[in-house]
Amino acid sequence: MSVRAAIWGEKAEAIEESLKAVDEDLFRYIRDFAYEEVLARPGLDLKTRELLAITALIALGSPKELATHLEGALRVGATEREVRETILQSALFLGFPRALAAMKLFQKVLKGRGAPHEGEG
Amino acid sequence: MSVRAAIWGEKAEAIEESLKAVDEDLFRYIRDFAYEEVLARPGLDLKTRELLAITALIALGSPKELATHLEGALRVGATEREVRETILQSALFLGFPRALAAMKLFQKVLKGRGAPHEGEG
Amino acid sequence: MSVRAAIWGEKAEAIEESLKAVDEDLFRYIRDFAYEEVLARPGLDLKTRELLAITALIALGSPKELATHLEGALRVGATEREVRETILQSALFLGFPRALAAMKLFQKVLKGRGAPHEGEG
Amino acid sequence: MSVRAAIWGEKAEAIEESLKAVDEDLFRYIRDFAYEEVLARPGLDLKTRELLAITALIALGSPKELATHLEGALRVGATEREVRETILQSALFLGFPRALAAMKLFQKVLKGRGAPHEGEG
Amino acid sequence: MSVRAAIWGEKAEAIEESLKAVDEDLFRYIRDFAYEEVLARPGLDLKTRELLAITALIALGSPKELATHLEGALRVGATEREVRETILQSALFLGFPRALAAMKLFQKVLKGRGAPHEGEG
Amino acid sequence: MSVRAAIWGEKAEAIEESLKAVDEDLFRYIRDFAYEEVLARPGLDLKTRELLAITALIALGSPKELATHLEGALRVGATEREVRETILQSALFLGFPRALAAMKLFQKVLKGRGAPHEGEG
Repeated sequence: MSVRAAIWGEKAEAIEESLKAVDEDLFRYIRDFAYEEVLARPGLDLKTRELLAITALIALGSPKELATHLEGALRVGATEREVRETILQSALFLGFPRALAAMKLFQKVLKGRGAPHEGEG
Repeated sequence: MSVRAAIWGEKAEAIEESLKAVDEDLFRYIRDFAYEEVLARPGLDLKTRELLAITALIALGSPKELATHLEGALRVGATEREVRETILQSALFLGFPRALAAMKLFQKVLKGRGAPHEGEG
Repeated sequence: MSVRAAIWGEKAEAIEESLKAVDEDLFRYIRDFAYEEVLARPGLDLKTRELLAITALIALGSPKELATHLEGALRVGATEREVRETILQSALFLGFPRALAAMKLFQKVLKGRGAPHEGEG
Repeated sequence: MSVRAAIWGEKAEAIEESLKAVDEDLFRYIRDFAYEEVLARPGLDLKTRELLAITALIALGSPKELATHLEGALRVGATEREVRETILQSALFLGFPRALAAMKLFQKVLKGRGAPHEGEG
Repeated sequence: MSVRAAIWGEKAEAIEESLKAVDEDLFRYIRDFAYEEVLARPGLDLKTRELLAITALIALGSPKELATHLEGALRVGATEREVRETILQSALFLGFPRALAAMKLFQKVLKGRGAPHEGEG
Repeated sequence: MSVRAAIWGEKAEAIEESLKAVDEDLFRYIRDFAYEEVLARPGLDLKTRELLAITALIALGSPKELATHLEGALRVGATEREVRETILQSALFLGFPRALAAMKLFQKVLKGRGAPHEGEG
């Protein structure tokens, strides 16, 4: 299974279509370099990689991309608790406002996943 | 063993003395809240916590604090490879300049550790 | 009166309920460490502390948390003029785009406060 | 033609009214210092200046101000391709999440411009 | 007394000469716009303005410019305690690493001021 | 000529050796993806690309990488004036402290280039 199939799950096709429509070259770089070259490297398991991605995205303050990897972390095997710990810890390094915004977003992600009409049941 | 003993290793006493001399209250917050409350939480192992700390510090671009946690990651059991993967991945989220600066710093940390006169042999 | 009662005003209960629902531990850290330990320290009056918070949040670019402290500054006695000066000055250090976004947000906060149905009249 | 007339185009009057209503002094600084003093300097053409502005705004992660200059770049003669290249390149320095968010925003800007009811036909 | 005379103190002439040698136009903007227009505005006292500047510079992580305003805050009447409180509070919003780096820098500034050979006695 | 030969000039070999020693994989990504794939794209001339790189690096506050591209901009045909304008403009978007630090660094770069023993005469 490709790394993006693992992280994007049932949304993979929709995300790929959307990225391709935004910019074909950027899509290609994200797919071939970011996901299938760098994130696919051995040496660190995908769950740890997704927790690192969450931390980087809390630092950037990019909510949409953060939501993608909050979901991605759960898909590749992180527990809700591990994601919460990752966000809590970010308060120490990046400040409470960033951690709080991320935790609110995670709450929304969890609610979305719980909803059966999201097709994930 | 306290979390700071694990992360700071043989430098713990020197770091504590130095922090205390800088500001007693900030030292107390770093010791009691950051290290012994938040970083000491169960739910995520200390090695993963240190890799997350490295990512946050690459985002901040804070070289001294980054060096502390690059060493700390190795002390709590991360392999050189795992630290390199953490830094490499940060290029995707935080850009190549930040990743490159962090990798140069890690090279210095590795050289410092290898030196027997550093008292770590 | 607690520091959060002073800063959050009539919204204190709603904010606490909402934070608690997001994450109990993060709520506890924000309440006990951020508000009632650090922001409650003597040595700097609460109005100055809120103007400093506004500056930090303009730097982070976190609109929701910024709105909380724009309101908070007014509640603990800052004048509209003092808040405007704080935002204007941030243009020098953090650039015009951040200052402009903050000033637009402050305009919304002021309109919200003026509305009698907000229950603050 | 003033620099702001060139960058803001047919929206100039609306933007000026809106800025003035937000804060008269900030408006004055943006108009007289930012636009008509610094951006109006010779030594670099306005198209290059707008591509630089786009890069700075991708770094800040400020979507509204970024949209203004994505449009502005097109108005002062940048091609769609040049704007795309500017955004693509930002991935190297500022990371993929920031570049992707900017490219999605540019897609919206392009759609808005194409719409005849926007009064730009 | 000009605002820069108040903030730069006995170093004013040296700083002006150095800025002018770096870039005459940037020097002129810093002198005429940043210091004598914006920082000179009434509506907020200079001590508060310097504490705000310190917060913004901790966010940016710019050590040289931060040192200038740590000294400047003391010159315009902030106590050592007020500066320490400003730095301590920044840990909440901007994270401990930034606050710690700033406090270490302040320690150096305080030592430099205490030294009689610095010509400040 | 490769893009890195154009940007790194007579320092190309030394930079490549140094990067390779830091991390072979990161070096490969920087060489093959960053320089020879993205920066080598047509659609934007190399001089404009280097001015964009300077802006992104001022935003990051990364002095070593910024120095590389300040020199690089001059090598691929930017005039001293164009680089100064790029830095001056960054004050509007990223604040004066970042612009000032960049201008001081550029002054050092210019002095280094002027020195005949640097092997560039």
